[in-house]
Amino acid sequence: MVYLDYAATTPILPEVSKAMRKAETLFFANASALHTPGHLSRNEIEECRAILAEMIGADPDEIIFTSGASESNNTVVRTFEGHKIITSPLEHHSVIEAAKVYGGDKTPTLYSFMLANNETGEILELPKKKPNSFYHSDLTQVLGKIPIDVKKLGLDYATFSAHKIGGPIGVGALYVKKDAPFKPLIIGGLQENKRRGGTYNTVSIVGFKEALKYARDNCIWEKYDTDVRKLRDALAKRILKEIPGSSLNTDITPGASLPNILNASFKAAEGESIQLYLDAEGIIVSTGSACAAGDIKPSHVLMAKTGDAEVAHSSIRFSFGPENTMADVEKTMTVLPGVIDRLQKISTIGQ
Amino acid sequence: MVYLDYAATTPILPEVSKAMRKAETLFFANASALHTPGHLSRNEIEECRAILAEMIGADPDEIIFTSGASESNNTVVRTFEGHKIITSPLEHHSVIEAAKVYGGDKTPTLYSFMLANNETGEILELPKKKPNSFYHSDLTQVLGKIPIDVKKLGLDYATFSAHKIGGPIGVGALYVKKDAPFKPLIIGGLQENKRRGGTYNTVSIVGFKEALKYARDNCIWEKYDTDVRKLRDALAKRILKEIPGSSLNTDITPGASLPNILNASFKAAEGESIQLYLDAEGIIVSTGSACAAGDIKPSHVLMAKTGDAEVAHSSIRFSFGPENTMADVEKTMTVLPGVIDRLQKISTIGQ
Repeated sequence: MVYLDYAATTPILPEVSKAMRKAETLFFANASALHTPGHLSRNEIEECRAILAEMIGADPDEIIFTSGASESNNTVVRTFEGHKIITSPLEHHSVIEAAKVYGGDKTPTLYSFMLANNETGEILELPKKKPNSFYHSDLTQVLGKIPIDVKKLGLDYATFSAHKIGGPIGVGALYVKKDAPFKPLIIGGLQENKRRGGTYNTVSIVGFKEALKYARDNCIWEKYDTDVRKLRDALAKRILKEIPGSSLNTDITPGASLPNILNASFKAAEGESIQLYLDAEGIIVSTGSACAAGDIKPSHVLMAKTGDAEVAHSSIRFSFGPENTMADVEKTMTVLPGVIDRLQKISTIGQ
Repeated sequence: MVYLDYAATTPILPEVSKAMRKAETLFFANASALHTPGHLSRNEIEECRAILAEMIGADPDEIIFTSGASESNNTVVRTFEGHKIITSPLEHHSVIEAAKVYGGDKTPTLYSFMLANNETGEILELPKKKPNSFYHSDLTQVLGKIPIDVKKLGLDYATFSAHKIGGPIGVGALYVKKDAPFKPLIIGGLQENKRRGGTYNTVSIVGFKEALKYARDNCIWEKYDTDVRKLRDALAKRILKEIPGSSLNTDITPGASLPNILNASFKAAEGESIQLYLDAEGIIVSTGSACAAGDIKPSHVLMAKTGDAEVAHSSIRFSFGPENTMADVEKTMTVLPGVIDRLQKISTIGQ
């Protein structure tokens, strides 16, 4: 299998899996409990919190663990219920849809803008700071790909997820700047300083910790910037050269996009059909984001970016990870041109 | 270690751990994706949904996966934002605190009542059905302990959690009766029929599935009703007989309480001190619920039940699981009387 869907979710790292197995035995106890097994669980959680905080330039008590990026995004947006919420059509649905539900007209205003888009990889400019405003960024796709400093970025809130960096699904984090407004979304116990109820997901947080340590200790963003970028760029160039009617929705100039995402469109070929044909050959890619898969509407991101339904409908996201090799690009390029050719011919016959 | 804190969280079953390891490799892909690995992940989720539905007398599409019981409880309560919400002081904080935040005076009314309390194990009577009302029950402690039929119980909503039955922390479920009002708490993608955004936590759901299968295939509630009950009752009787000033907060008459929970108070001995002394001897118990640990207030449940701060402050919850044996009761009773005696003496000296 050639797995090119890292932006949807990454395989669990062997180190992460091993640590989680150990944690199931050693740190299974409820981390809120006052007994020794509870304390041991709690220590693991605090260690993860400290590592994430250091990696993003925050204080440990500015980190809240959540069930994932959607919950983190929702929590920030709901904190500004009734307030003006300014966001962009490129955002994840967990920001856009929540803003529709909770947005109002009070101030201060919340600005919620990604630093890098999950479908195209495009690196975006964060909005200029204005008075009486707070700033959130969904950094789910950015963590581990490029170094992050939430203070330098001027953020009051930032969203992170474990399963985009080799950790488990079901655990994420939210950076909340000291003294920034905050309203818990999961209301209940005293966990996370009353900021997030629910039993601590210690085993998964141990997995998150291992994934963060792996990223940090291996300067994984450097590997992305060199090795992974090489694969992405090679695929981009070969697609443009070898496939008639192809175009890129990702600017692969260094600095313009995350090094691991390539979004491309193929004239007169439908994205889902391309995906299914590639899948039959063991090549795993996606159309837009997995969160909206099953939706017959074209990607809201590509529609917002291109304004062209045909381009959006014919788009494929190839997303790479550290485990990919040039052989994966080779394999993809032995299959993809034929798939596109076949679909373009069917499309022509149909007209 | 003698682990008597099953009501806080259970150790992961070996079968569950094994299935999750396998799932990390086979079902790591994003379950919303349309490619084959995505479909394989999705199948696992649907299998879990079907098993849970069958075990509780629901239809599979009446089951929504969540990050756990607190999220499930919060989701139901928030669905009735602005409405009259009737609940009891015995409920979990994720119901009580959410009801404070979201409760209003519109109708229909939401009734939220546990079938069994998490601190005393007491089996409670659900409120009589009234017109223009909806009924929720947090069945977190009940699942696997006694058979459940949500239809017979007359419920519109019910909360479940994997980590109380040998599954992983971080995954739970919510039963929502067909056509009952519903407002998603985690807003975002199309997952769960637009009822719960966020990437499917497939590996944990596989763990939940295995825990459910283990419970079902071994009729685990029968083991609770016989073997586990025997341990709980033996401890209760020995405490009353051998420890002066002891009293039970759990009625151990069959049918009056879950068979695995025993809450007891020890006159003139402080609960946290008892817990710490037992912990030093490798006996793991809790004071009240772990969700409120660290709070200096006495258990809200025992205060509501007894109205007596001293009884509440001096209470310990012993909660058993299928892995416990009579040797655990023996060990506890070789240590506990001495601990209580010492604390009672300190207390007398202090007065």
